Amino acid sequence: MPKYYDQLDASLRALADPTRRAVVERLAKSPAVVSELAAPFPMALPSFMQHLRVLENAGLVISHKSGRIRTVSLRPGALDVVHLWLGEQRTPAENQADRLGIHLTRSTAEGRLP
Amino acid sequence: MPKYYDQLDASLRALADPTRRAVVERLAKSPAVVSELAAPFPMALPSFMQHLRVLENAGLVISHKSGRIRTVSLRPGALDVVHLWLGEQRTPAENQADRLGIHLTRSTAEGRLP
Repeated sequence: MPKYYDQLDASLRALADPTRRAVVERLAKSPAVVSELAAPFPMALPSFMQHLRVLENAGLVISHKSGRIRTVSLRPGALDVVHLWLGEQRTPAENQADRLGIHLTRSTAEGRLP
Repeated sequence: MPKYYDQLDASLRALADPTRRAVVERLAKSPAVVSELAAPFPMALPSFMQHLRVLENAGLVISHKSGRIRTVSLRPGALDVVHLWLGEQRTPAENQADRLGIHLTRSTAEGRLP
C-alpha cells in the first residue's frame, strides 16, 4: 500500500472526530499555545493532549516547545492528501458537468439528471 | 450544531475506514451491483452490507433494488460537504500564496516559508 494511503488513512481517522476537527478549524486561523487551544473543550488536559497527539501523528499539526510553552500550528499542506483523494472520486457525470460548465445541484441526487 | 456539521461528521466517520473508501473509489467509476461490489473484499456479506449501510446513512451512496438485484451508486455531490470544510481550513499563508500564484511545496512544511 503506498505511503499516500497510509497518510490518507491517518488523516481521515484524525478528522473523523469533532474535537480534532475543531482544533484544526482553530489552527487554520493562527498557531496557538496548548492551554489556549484546550480551553474551549470540556475535557481534562490529558484527554485533550491525546487528541493533539493523534493530529500530530497524522501529520496534520506540528508543535514546538519554547521553555514550558508548547505552540501548535496547522502543518501547511496538511490537508492536501485528503483534497487529492476527494478530487479522484469525482464521478464521470461530475467531470462532464464541469466540462460543460454546469453546476451540479441537489436535483442530481434525486436522479433527475444523469 | 448546524445540519452541515452532522453531515460532515457522518461523512468523515464513513470515510475513515479503508473498506468504505475503497467502495467509494469503485463507485466513482460507475454504479455496481452489491455482489460485484463485495467481491474484492475478504469479508462475509453481512459485514460488507454493514459498511454499505454506513455509507448510505452518511448520504455518500444511494441504492435501488430491481427484483433481487440491488445497485449502488455514489450520490452526486456526496463529497461536497467534505470539500467545503477542507476549503474553509486553508491557512492565511495558503490563501496569500494562492493570491501570489505560488504553489506551496513540502518545503513550507519544514518552516522554510512563512
